[in-house]
Formats: sequence, structure tokens, C-alpha cells
Amino acid sequence: MTTAADRFATEGFGPQNLPYASFSTAGGAPRLGVRLGERAIDVNALATALDTTGPVLPEGLHTAVSAPDLDVLLAAGREAWTALRAWLVEVVTTDGAAEAVERASHPVEEVRLHMPFTVADYVDYYASEHHASNVGRMFRPDQAPLLPNWKRLPVGYHGRAGTVIPSGQDFPRPKGLRPEQDGTPSFGPSRRLDIEAEIGFVLGGSAPAGEVSVARAAAEHLFGVVLFNDWSARDIQAYEYVPLGPYLGKSFASSISLWVVPWEALAAARVAPPAREHELAPYLDDSSGGPWGLDITMEVVLDGQAVSHPPVRTMYWTAPQMVAHMTVNGASLRPGDFFGSGTVSGPEADQRGSFLELSWGGKEPFTLADGTEMSFLEDGQTVTLKGTAPGPDGSVIDFGECTATVLPAT
Amino acid sequence: MTTAADRFATEGFGPQNLPYASFSTAGGAPRLGVRLGERAIDVNALATALDTTGPVLPEGLHTAVSAPDLDVLLAAGREAWTALRAWLVEVVTTDGAAEAVERASHPVEEVRLHMPFTVADYVDYYASEHHASNVGRMFRPDQAPLLPNWKRLPVGYHGRAGTVIPSGQDFPRPKGLRPEQDGTPSFGPSRRLDIEAEIGFVLGGSAPAGEVSVARAAAEHLFGVVLFNDWSARDIQAYEYVPLGPYLGKSFASSISLWVVPWEALAAARVAPPAREHELAPYLDDSSGGPWGLDITMEVVLDGQAVSHPPVRTMYWTAPQMVAHMTVNGASLRPGDFFGSGTVSGPEADQRGSFLELSWGGKEPFTLADGTEMSFLEDGQTVTLKGTAPGPDGSVIDFGECTATVLPAT
Repeated sequence: MTTAADRFATEGFGPQNLPYASFSTAGGAPRLGVRLGERAIDVNALATALDTTGPVLPEGLHTAVSAPDLDVLLAAGREAWTALRAWLVEVVTTDGAAEAVERASHPVEEVRLHMPFTVADYVDYYASEHHASNVGRMFRPDQAPLLPNWKRLPVGYHGRAGTVIPSGQDFPRPKGLRPEQDGTPSFGPSRRLDIEAEIGFVLGGSAPAGEVSVARAAAEHLFGVVLFNDWSARDIQAYEYVPLGPYLGKSFASSISLWVVPWEALAAARVAPPAREHELAPYLDDSSGGPWGLDITMEVVLDGQAVSHPPVRTMYWTAPQMVAHMTVNGASLRPGDFFGSGTVSGPEADQRGSFLELSWGGKEPFTLADGTEMSFLEDGQTVTLKGTAPGPDGSVIDFGECTATVLPAT
Repeated sequence: MTTAADRFATEGFGPQNLPYASFSTAGGAPRLGVRLGERAIDVNALATALDTTGPVLPEGLHTAVSAPDLDVLLAAGREAWTALRAWLVEVVTTDGAAEAVERASHPVEEVRLHMPFTVADYVDYYASEHHASNVGRMFRPDQAPLLPNWKRLPVGYHGRAGTVIPSGQDFPRPKGLRPEQDGTPSFGPSRRLDIEAEIGFVLGGSAPAGEVSVARAAAEHLFGVVLFNDWSARDIQAYEYVPLGPYLGKSFASSISLWVVPWEALAAARVAPPAREHELAPYLDDSSGGPWGLDITMEVVLDGQAVSHPPVRTMYWTAPQMVAHMTVNGASLRPGDFFGSGTVSGPEADQRGSFLELSWGGKEPFTLADGTEMSFLEDGQTVTLKGTAPGPDGSVIDFGECTATVLPAT
């Protein structure tokens, strides 16, 4: 007898990970999936197959696992998330269930992935000190790199939920008003199309009266983590963004990876965030219960060539702090709320998460392994984000990939 | 024989208006309603009652009218909107249908109103030149009142869709980080809580590839108009908003009026917008097919006393321009997308749509009719927005009201 984990697990997709997706097979409807190695397991089919032999799906989860995506599960809250994950771990590590797992699953290369949840509100933060400092140095060279508020609160803004798109969906180069040398704008395709290598957090449960504490954010609302590329048209953004922030420079497309890594799978990846420079407002104090930083290492790949390795562990603000901030004013939280970390950049040049920084505003083009000089994205180029984190007992948590190709402007 | 309009119409809620809502009666589920005078008509019940005698609801509208709110109708598109409105006008102006209308309706004071649609994405614009100039004069006294981009494109940003709340829902004063005199922040309830008197636009249909032209915006996507109060905590906003725009200073609550006035009802209210200072990018050219400005006069009422009458006809940017801008970068549009105009302020002091402007940043408190001096909102105060527009043949379109009371901070 072997377990499903024995038979199917790979290094990054073993029982320590078990990320969720919405997938379909040819001609079929989307259904909730979980990944073990190179297999996409149909969770509802697995529950049905094991209904008599066991392990039996715990009471109360049938509606969630028979849904086409994570929406029902996100609304169900932490108790359901923990129960489903515990059952899945038991199933894939139990002798005798390997056949059922095999029959209920499909090779990942044969399935189509869909948006894993309906994005309710989408917020993007700006939580990397190195990124914010680089941007400050480029755009405000005569001032301190960070604005006065930056270390007092996690700066963020709302983005367009309707244009959060699934990895693999390509998009045309956005058009808009770009500033010319004399300051007047011209209309046309963006000339400074960029990436922002981020991680994204999927929230569940609901908090109608807001004011979710750091402790409650972690205990009740943080469901999962994905890779996130907040594509940015720097020229459109530069012209439009005063005084109300980014709008069309960002709202054309933001890509997410499609295997949602459970927050609970990242227990071994939690690390202390950088030392805080100021005493924080009590609602942002994340010094207990943690640490709440995450040791995820990302890789930015351009047309197959690695260009950067942004380290999430260097982020100044942690996910529970960002949830606490989002709701401290009384703003409600809904299942499916989603937020990005902001561009992840480390202290080293090869740890920067945007081409803006890698090419220092286009003034210092960087060189790919094949000798190509790069500043901003050309039509036809493909950017893929990858990411891994430590799992328990020396294992690895793989985030899969977040990819898209830039199509010519329409 | 009399018509339902003869029997029930009031000046602002006659057959020229017929706004939609989602309403329920005691113990009942929400259903789609339309307003005639002081009656809330259950549209589905009306269609059922007239199924044999006529006028018969046109084919294809049964699903939309049996929904609890406008969501199905918004997705159905302009042809369905026009057909439903034409049927409603026919019913209320046809001899013999008055009894059916009476039986299918309830006094508006006996029904409870709900959110009339599910907000997909919410964008707020900044389309009043007088408002933007006033803000510029207060915050950047040494510069030109308008930033260079302001007359080149409609400045806007995304807000929080999940905290767009129905008129009548009160909310606690928001808390957050407020700047003290020395520039450091302190945490506590906002001391500069304000209103923003706006109108809001409800969009329907879908445009997956974006790039909705001015003409298509009007023909296919503008479904209706509401009153909108984008409550703003000026101190929280002032501290947080650089460089990515407003976030917690706005995201705690934004109130909408609950009778959605159909775009088609506003044909007689359309007026030319102000002359444009620059030649606009072609995608923003709204000089044909219009005019696209709207002659809506708002009233801001504080605890029963009128404080201001913002004139929507003075807005620089028109609704079709704002839709075209929202999508020119390829951003998709979904049914239920919603946008605010930005604070409506006219050239006169008593036409300003925010207390920030009425009190000139709190430096020149204004005086209510009863002698009270006012700058920003106190706990327990109630703000109500009202609005009217010209209808056809000298009639009036009434927008109802958008109201909420500020509760003490929790």
C-alpha cells in the first residue's frame, strides 16, 4: 500500500502545500481543485469516491467542495478552511486512498484553470521599503526617499477588481495620454509598460463593521496567497496620478497565479519583518502572535531568462497589518476581498521587482543573459513570476506561476 | 376611466420619471420596484396582473422583472431597458390599468428600500472645475489652482465598492491616523468629517475588451443616475494620500440614493458642458450626439437646513467622457459598474458641495439659517442630498434623497 502523496507528490506540491484552484477538463464545467504534484484533484469527486470507505469529508463542507470555485469556501470561514485542509492532508497521506485520488484527478497539463474566486474589492499596497525608496529617489531626487507617512502606515489604494485576470490571459498594450517632453500629453500606446512583481492575499469570512485586528486578520480572514503582477504603464500613470493616485496606468490588467496557496501552508515560512523605525499606532502593532513576515522568494522571468529574485521577507509591512489598516476606519470586509503587497524589491539590484527600478527609470538599461538590453516591455514579450517558500521539515511550497504576454495595442 | 398616472403621479414622480428600486414589505423578500408618485410598484406583480388583459410585458423581460434588484436588468442591456420603460410608461398612461397598478403597489412610506444593484467596480471622478480649483487654492496656494492634467483628462480613482451603502444607513465616525501640528500622526476619530455632494452613474451591459466610445457609452452603457455622498475624512485623507491617492479617508462609507433615475428619463435635462479649454484627445471628444451635460440641481440639507445648491450643469466633464476614459486603456466594463462625478460645486459660495469648501478648510466657518456656525460634521448630524432635473414638457424629475446620520466613533 502506498499513499497518494507517495505516488504523486513532487518537491513543491506535496501534502505540505495542497493549493486550490478552479479547473475544468475538455467540455466540462469548472470545479474546485486541489493540487498534488502534477495532478489536479477534483475535490467533489474525491469526496464522493470516499463517501463509503473514508476518510469521509467532514459535515458541512459539501456545498463548498461542489462549487465551481473558492467563493463558497471563502464565505464559510476559518473553521471550514481548516477542516477541509485537514481532510485533504489525511486523504493524501492515508494508505489505501491513492486509487481514489488518482481516479478523481487529472494531469495538470490537461486541465484548464479559471479565476479561483470572484474578486470583491481589490487593494494594492506599497509595502516594500526598497521599492518605495527607489521610486522616491528616481522621482523626488531632492527629497528624502520615503514620504513622511510611509513608515507610519501601509500606504495603499483601491484598484479595479474587474481587471484582475487569470495567469495565462494575454492583454494588449494599453493606450492613454502620455506626457511629451514639453509637458503636453499625446494619446497612444504606452511606451513604458512595466511589471510589478508582488504577492497577493485572498481574504475570506466577513467583517461587516470593519476594525479587524492584526490577530483576527490572521486567525479569521487570511485564506491564501498567490503571485501577482500589477502591470503598470508608467507614462500614463505619471501623467494622470496627481492628485488622486494611479488609475488607467494600472487598471487595464493585473494577473494572478491560479493555484491559491493556503495561509495555513505557510506556517514554516513566517519570519520577523524588518525592525520598525517608529512606535506604531496600536492597531498596527503586529509584535505578538507572529512573526507575520513571509519568506517567499520570487523569480521574475522574461522570455525564459531570469532577471530578478525579489525577496518577500524584506517587506516592511505584514499581511495582518495590511488587513487591520484596510478596516480600521470601519470599512467592511467581504469574502473575496483581495490585496497586493506592492512591488517586492530587495536591497540588491538583482532583487528589484519592476523594470522601472531594474533600468533606473529607463536611464540605465539592464542586460539579459543573452546580451539583450532592456528597459520597458516590448510587444510579444512574456513575463512569468515564480515563487517558493519553505514548508515544514525542509519541504518546499511552490506557488506555480503567474504569466502573460504583451500583445500589440489594438 | 383614469390612468394610474392621473391617480398617483406627483410633480417629480410622474410617468416622465419612473425610477427603479429594490424594495420589500414587512416579512417579504426584496423585489424590483418602480415609483409613481408616492407608490412603489412591484414590477413583477404588475406584469403578472396584466398578463391576460394587457398591456403585456414584452417577451424576454420576465427574468429581469422577477429579480430582487436591478442586477439582471443591468446585464440585459439597452434594448431591454428601453422595452421595459416603454411598457411601464404605457401601463401608467393607459386607461383601465390604474386598478392593477394600485393592487401591485404599496405606499412608499411602508416599504423598505435596499441596495438597488450590486456594485461591481466603483470609480470616483473629480469633474467639477470649481471644486478642483477651490481645493487647489486651499492646498497649493502658491500654484495654479488646477494641475496640468486636469483639463486634459477626467481625473479619477477607484474606491471601495463594498462600502457603497444605501441611503438611510447611518455609520460611525471613522478612525485613523490624523496629522498633528508638528506633522506626526495621532490615532483617533476624524476631526474633519465632510460630505461630497455628487451624482452617481449606474452602468449596464458589458464591454470585455474596454474601449467604450463616448457614443457607445451613452447608447449602450449608461443605465441610470443617483445622488451620491462620498463621505470624506479630510484629516485622514490629508495624511495618507501621497503618493497613491485617497484610501481610508473615503473607504468607510459612500451613500447612494435608492431610486435609480433612468438615463432615458433625463433627455430633457441634457445641456452643453462648459467650453473646453484645450482640444481633447479624440476618445474624449463629446461634441457630437449630445449635448451630454446634465441640468440637475442638488440641495445639501444639514439637519433640516439647506446649506448649498450645487449645480451639476457646471461640471466640466460629462458622463460619456468619463465612461470612455475608464475603458480607453482596455479595462473591461461590467454590469453594476458605478462611478461618482466628484463633488459638484458651482461658481458661487452657496453652490459648493463640500464643507471643506463652504468653510474654506475650516478657516471661515459658515452660518446656518438658525445661526449655528459650522465647519465639519459633528456626531449626530444628518446630511441629506436632494436633486431635481427638468423633464419633458415642463415636468420635473425628482431624484428622491440620499441621507445618513453620523454616529459617534465606536
